[in-house]
Amino acid sequence: MPISLGELATTFGCELIGDPDVTVNGVASLTNASSESLTFLSSAAYSSQLPSTKAAAVVLRAADADACPVSALISDSPYVMYARMAALVCPAPTFAPGVHATATIAESARVADSAHVAASAVIGDRTTIGENAVVGPGTVIGPDCTIGDNCRFIANVSIVKNVTIGARCLFHPGAVIGSDGFGNAMTPEGWVKVPQVGGVRIGSDVEIGANTSIDCGAIGDTVIEDGVRIDNLVHIAHNVHIGAHTAIAALCGFAGSTTIGKRCMFAGNSGAVNHITVCDDVIVMSQSVLTKDTTTPGVYSSSFPAKPARAWAKQVARFRRLEGLFARVKRLEK
Amino acid sequence: MPISLGELATTFGCELIGDPDVTVNGVASLTNASSESLTFLSSAAYSSQLPSTKAAAVVLRAADADACPVSALISDSPYVMYARMAALVCPAPTFAPGVHATATIAESARVADSAHVAASAVIGDRTTIGENAVVGPGTVIGPDCTIGDNCRFIANVSIVKNVTIGARCLFHPGAVIGSDGFGNAMTPEGWVKVPQVGGVRIGSDVEIGANTSIDCGAIGDTVIEDGVRIDNLVHIAHNVHIGAHTAIAALCGFAGSTTIGKRCMFAGNSGAVNHITVCDDVIVMSQSVLTKDTTTPGVYSSSFPAKPARAWAKQVARFRRLEGLFARVKRLEK
Amino acid sequence: MPISLGELATTFGCELIGDPDVTVNGVASLTNASSESLTFLSSAAYSSQLPSTKAAAVVLRAADADACPVSALISDSPYVMYARMAALVCPAPTFAPGVHATATIAESARVADSAHVAASAVIGDRTTIGENAVVGPGTVIGPDCTIGDNCRFIANVSIVKNVTIGARCLFHPGAVIGSDGFGNAMTPEGWVKVPQVGGVRIGSDVEIGANTSIDCGAIGDTVIEDGVRIDNLVHIAHNVHIGAHTAIAALCGFAGSTTIGKRCMFAGNSGAVNHITVCDDVIVMSQSVLTKDTTTPGVYSSSFPAKPARAWAKQVARFRRLEGLFARVKRLEK
Repeated sequence: MPISLGELATTFGCELIGDPDVTVNGVASLTNASSESLTFLSSAAYSSQLPSTKAAAVVLRAADADACPVSALISDSPYVMYARMAALVCPAPTFAPGVHATATIAESARVADSAHVAASAVIGDRTTIGENAVVGPGTVIGPDCTIGDNCRFIANVSIVKNVTIGARCLFHPGAVIGSDGFGNAMTPEGWVKVPQVGGVRIGSDVEIGANTSIDCGAIGDTVIEDGVRIDNLVHIAHNVHIGAHTAIAALCGFAGSTTIGKRCMFAGNSGAVNHITVCDDVIVMSQSVLTKDTTTPGVYSSSFPAKPARAWAKQVARFRRLEGLFARVKRLEK
Repeated sequence: MPISLGELATTFGCELIGDPDVTVNGVASLTNASSESLTFLSSAAYSSQLPSTKAAAVVLRAADADACPVSALISDSPYVMYARMAALVCPAPTFAPGVHATATIAESARVADSAHVAASAVIGDRTTIGENAVVGPGTVIGPDCTIGDNCRFIANVSIVKNVTIGARCLFHPGAVIGSDGFGNAMTPEGWVKVPQVGGVRIGSDVEIGANTSIDCGAIGDTVIEDGVRIDNLVHIAHNVHIGAHTAIAALCGFAGSTTIGKRCMFAGNSGAVNHITVCDDVIVMSQSVLTKDTTTPGVYSSSFPAKPARAWAKQVARFRRLEGLFARVKRLEK
Repeated sequence: MPISLGELATTFGCELIGDPDVTVNGVASLTNASSESLTFLSSAAYSSQLPSTKAAAVVLRAADADACPVSALISDSPYVMYARMAALVCPAPTFAPGVHATATIAESARVADSAHVAASAVIGDRTTIGENAVVGPGTVIGPDCTIGDNCRFIANVSIVKNVTIGARCLFHPGAVIGSDGFGNAMTPEGWVKVPQVGGVRIGSDVEIGANTSIDCGAIGDTVIEDGVRIDNLVHIAHNVHIGAHTAIAALCGFAGSTTIGKRCMFAGNSGAVNHITVCDDVIVMSQSVLTKDTTTPGVYSSSFPAKPARAWAKQVARFRRLEGLFARVKRLEK
């Protein structure tokens, strides 16, 4: 959407160095920007690309303004400011209210008049869909769910049953919310399923990635607090509790009854096991799994970066011979 | 469903200490239980919650009965007994027989009169659907499949082709059964696809989690035996064979042609590679991958718990300097 | 499809030792083959099964021909030759052109007359579907996508928006292409979503596995070059670039802006992080993650095979005591 630099500066209260009547109509990287692009400089790693940018304007810190060959929008947090401006320049699509002819809505469901229900979507008994919600094509929302205003389910999302979702949440395709937890009791004849009768409660402003699964509680609910961001292919087991504004990258896993604090960050393929409680502001590095209650904020890790395989194999062989090495040192000490 | 303690005790043949006419109408944890709740005490870790429970009745061991302030149902295996009773108190939903107007059934398919086929579901050529089966909304069952009695596909499940499933199996949303195995032959011009012409055979009483994928065999079938339980986001490659009553937690992966025994347990993000055979009763810990034939039952592991990142980095640096340490010890020994 | 050995030999230009009029009508393993089966011997590990095979014919190297009790088709690359012949013997199913009555096609979309659009499929605005493409049941292709000729989407695939796909690509169920990248900017009040405005460009002859997700670019496109093969449950983040003919096994993850060269191979549960660039012809072993720019072709690893848990625990304990061991050796050296 074409928007002038003057309007951007006014809307977001930031200083403009340049012509307020120039308009931007898209976003781009510093190197690929055209004369209609808004771009940004947030990390020093990209400073060298600034002098040659062809953008209409760059969002950047005051200290970088002198090196900017085009208009500059000044912000102490240029990445955040860019994010907000980009949402205005490249607005999310809008959807006409109404229910598509191929969608199926249970008689006892209530769908807000302003909501959009797309082709092949299915909405179950006693479920309510809030104002301006967008239920994308192929999405199934089962019985006894409450969907807040302005939520969007892109396509082929499955909300199983007994799920409550706040406002402005975004669900990417293949996300599954409210599937049965993995509850099984062993007998001599095999496993007996433990009925999973809890629900899922999701706050507002939550985003859930493609093909991520969040199980319902066994008893009581699985809880995702406000502002949580979850990437693709993440597993959240029954009765997990994720604190507000925690961010979880792809392929993470959280075992049953884990409690995670606020503002935590989990890098890809990390997670937590053993029913533990993790305090606020914990960062877990890629491929690293917390196994004990964690009461100190900070960064945690247990991963080894990949190395050339031959060198790695030797290293593993040495690791295996540590017992002998300890014994040899003991012998030497005697 | 309201049910009296007397009926529960009679149905499951366990001793009741308390009033047989009291009814329960739901399940809860010890701490959240109300006067209509059934709950249980299975682990000593929760014993301290017993004296203050407000439940109608607690399933517990005889040794815990004295400390129980409410009615008690006595069992040597309280978790199993609770699971069975909960299935009666909170029965699975029932579905009216019939095919929804928006579902599509191939002419050559045969669907039992007692089966339920939900909105937007699709059933392919020559496929048969057994008695009382429930094909949930958005589920696609492709051609040449045989689905046993009382199976349920919650929603948006994909059964690709040539899949045979026994009775009473449960498939959570996003599960994919019978997708092509990852078979590629390298040529100087790139990969040539190796046709994946096998099927998948699944026994009875199997449960498959959300967004789990089980590939068809390249030649011959991929096999999942009776009573297997598979959690979310698990990958089962072509020609894998999983023995009866094995349980597999989320994010596990099994490479092609792996054979796993009966009653094994794989914790989250574990698995097996290298076409190996694993005997019965093997337990693999989280993040640990079996790489060799395994003939001894027991517990296997190769994971490092996450530690504070600074301490971990030092530890990794020491690990990298092991070669030098071995050399120094050798020098000292001379 | 019945086909004579003579026709196979002629079509693929390979020597036949045996009766050209014998027909094959399926494929099988050496041990399970019947008198109508085509099979192959590629690895010495299976040589012992050759003398007793009941196959109609075996694709094998000239050196193995003498030991073959049935007809032999000679090739220097028997696995590749088998793959090509199997595609003829077991051809992919064909689909009648046309759009199913329950499918939904946007008015502004253009679907080739020869394409097949199955039940409950949905195709969005301004999207074009190429000749002979097969859009399987429940598949959703969003707006502004270009789908090349002869592509096939098996079932329940989600192509979100702004995705360009070449010819002859194959997408397995649950695959999600073009979902938003995981872009969030931290503020004191929580995360602000960074609009993900790029697309995805996929070359020709690409195969994408079940429940794999490929995010759109934040700015600019995520790129998958020709001939790439991706297995199930893989995560490809925004702005990743995967070079031609690279193969990626199940449960791998690639963090944002990773650039991977041509002909690389990633084993299960491996990947790359930190915005790195990886050269051509790199092989990464299972559970191993590249963390730095990689300029040397070859094999990389950082995984520990699972061991009996008790022995492993001792090993980990020794690893934790390495600091002390280094100190003790230093003391001895003084």
